Amino acid sequence: MTFDMRLVQRGARLRRTPFFAATQRYGARAYTVYNHMLFPINYADLEEEYWHLIRHVTLWDVAVERQVEITGPDAFAFTNLLTPRDLTRCAVGQGKYVVITAEDGGVINDPVLLRLGENHFWLALADSDVLLWARGVARHAGLRVTITEPDVSPLQVQGPKAKEVVRTLFGEGVTKLKYYWFLETSLDGIPVVVTRTGWSGEVGYEIYLRDGSRGDDLWERVMAAGKPHRIRPTGPSDIRRVEAGILNWGADMSMADNVYEAGLEWLIDVDKPADYIGREALQRVRSDGVTRKLAGIEIAGDPVPFNETKWPVSVSGGVVGQVTSAVWSPRLTRNIGYAMLPIAHTALGTTLQVDIPDIGMRQATVVTKPFVDPTKEIPKT
Amino acid sequence: MTFDMRLVQRGARLRRTPFFAATQRYGARAYTVYNHMLFPINYADLEEEYWHLIRHVTLWDVAVERQVEITGPDAFAFTNLLTPRDLTRCAVGQGKYVVITAEDGGVINDPVLLRLGENHFWLALADSDVLLWARGVARHAGLRVTITEPDVSPLQVQGPKAKEVVRTLFGEGVTKLKYYWFLETSLDGIPVVVTRTGWSGEVGYEIYLRDGSRGDDLWERVMAAGKPHRIRPTGPSDIRRVEAGILNWGADMSMADNVYEAGLEWLIDVDKPADYIGREALQRVRSDGVTRKLAGIEIAGDPVPFNETKWPVSVSGGVVGQVTSAVWSPRLTRNIGYAMLPIAHTALGTTLQVDIPDIGMRQATVVTKPFVDPTKEIPKT
Repeated sequence: MTFDMRLVQRGARLRRTPFFAATQRYGARAYTVYNHMLFPINYADLEEEYWHLIRHVTLWDVAVERQVEITGPDAFAFTNLLTPRDLTRCAVGQGKYVVITAEDGGVINDPVLLRLGENHFWLALADSDVLLWARGVARHAGLRVTITEPDVSPLQVQGPKAKEVVRTLFGEGVTKLKYYWFLETSLDGIPVVVTRTGWSGEVGYEIYLRDGSRGDDLWERVMAAGKPHRIRPTGPSDIRRVEAGILNWGADMSMADNVYEAGLEWLIDVDKPADYIGREALQRVRSDGVTRKLAGIEIAGDPVPFNETKWPVSVSGGVVGQVTSAVWSPRLTRNIGYAMLPIAHTALGTTLQVDIPDIGMRQATVVTKPFVDPTKEIPKT
Repeated sequence: MTFDMRLVQRGARLRRTPFFAATQRYGARAYTVYNHMLFPINYADLEEEYWHLIRHVTLWDVAVERQVEITGPDAFAFTNLLTPRDLTRCAVGQGKYVVITAEDGGVINDPVLLRLGENHFWLALADSDVLLWARGVARHAGLRVTITEPDVSPLQVQGPKAKEVVRTLFGEGVTKLKYYWFLETSLDGIPVVVTRTGWSGEVGYEIYLRDGSRGDDLWERVMAAGKPHRIRPTGPSDIRRVEAGILNWGADMSMADNVYEAGLEWLIDVDKPADYIGREALQRVRSDGVTRKLAGIEIAGDPVPFNETKWPVSVSGGVVGQVTSAVWSPRLTRNIGYAMLPIAHTALGTTLQVDIPDIGMRQATVVTKPFVDPTKEIPKT
């Protein structure tokens, strides 16, 4: 079933981003809720926004990526306790994509971590209250840390012309940033952090606004700088992120899935010297192996709608797993996605049946991900 | 500004309740998102649903009140650490409205707590990830507990005929429940917990479904039992809960407000023998006093729309605070709500100015809450 729903903002419980007025002015037509905040997810047809992203440049209000800020004399030791990544390998000025892990190895969140100082970190969150998790852990940890949600609100500038836009805004220095590095700077007095990161697989940057009262000012400056490059506001593109093999926390994995099951084991530094939450469980999983795993799949036939529920996956008539994301790629001209499957059914080429609401059974095949090889040029028409 | 928004469910990230199909079938026309789950908030006009609630009986899907279940040999000691209420005064079979407090005395959540056994608790949550908070605290607490989100999904049956409905469903025993007590029972094999609780100020019960696969079965049984009493599905009534002085976490208070500022000091047992998180901070607030406080207000003039943002409150031309909830009460025929104000402006009868989007300045007055005295009969026509 595909359906639209009317969201009536119920009282003042849901927060608005510093760019909310701008998103209304530019015609955002759908919002979801993410970290207790309204999240604009499209201004036009999803395929139209997708083509604009891969051909030109797009601006996304992702202020819902709320930050957890960790400071204090023991901030490094504490932050290093939260993730299997070895943060001794993260320099000041550098970021890392990390998983925040539970004691049982489950994925609590998968933020981009920025190291702003020896003992100064930001975690740009997916949709779970890591502020509560971190404060809870700190309660008896015996480390001197301060943990807050600062006034920081990211925008994403994504697409092949993104570099030109940030060059116009911030000058040559920013264009030299290596992947996942960042600069602290300002724009006509608006304090920002600019990172070479994004959720698209395209060239992209994030501009973290550090003063919520300047949201409109920053938005209009980005739109002006992008005008020669046909910039337009869009939602994040689920088509493009699935092509790139990027996961969506809450859909593709959650606390119920450990890091290996999610296929994120490259975020575990097995030789990390320091202890971290989940280490023992993950070491056990590593030696015993997993019983299920997130696999890339292709679904045969005509375009399927972007899945709103987890579709059942069958083998020989018995339900064995679930499709976590599925979407039609207009340039690959096939349905691509992920399914959480028993390990016995994850070999490349395995044939599956997917039960799609209102459509019925479709054949699917286990394939490699990412679906778009970042080193290869694919026609953008 | 009042506006409708289209919510496009973006992928399978947002969860559906066990009653989702039923809410669709019965014509839910608006959903919000609460604890990462779709929450049906109305089927008709808010005033129409309000009148039905206070005259007849209504059925609400509040499965978004996700539970945190705490079990294990130290479950009592651990749960007692999370709240200023003294849980030695909570018997097995009894519930309590509690606050979960941060180290600084801020309100992390305000669940209904149920004690199902000596060492078996449920917390029926407002919209924050207390599962993460509790697991974080447990990490180094040295107590033997297991903390999970169980398969438990509440419905609310609220209104003057609610007692008749639960009598039909569960028999005479349930109608004898004292306020905040509960019974574990079943209905044609559907396992449930029935509590004498609710979010309306009317007579009401909650039916906690313990098997998510039976959502539709339970829903239809409640609808059938309620038919002679004109039961209908509605959203929770913000009009009725403000009349009753009930707060909405995330709007009226949050982690940024301590228990005294929120006016919830009756949830602190100052003579509690055991330690709890936030005790020191709250003792300090108690002796030093607060600098701001949530006050009841009346706003003069014609009906105002239910506030979607926190409206600025001024005194002598300077902004001093914010309206956190405001709504027109059709039977009191006045605008009622709450404002967070500096203590100097909270005396009864204080005159304020409220800046309402698209309307402009309105005069307001500090009044006592609740607005509807539960011991007095008010005409329901």
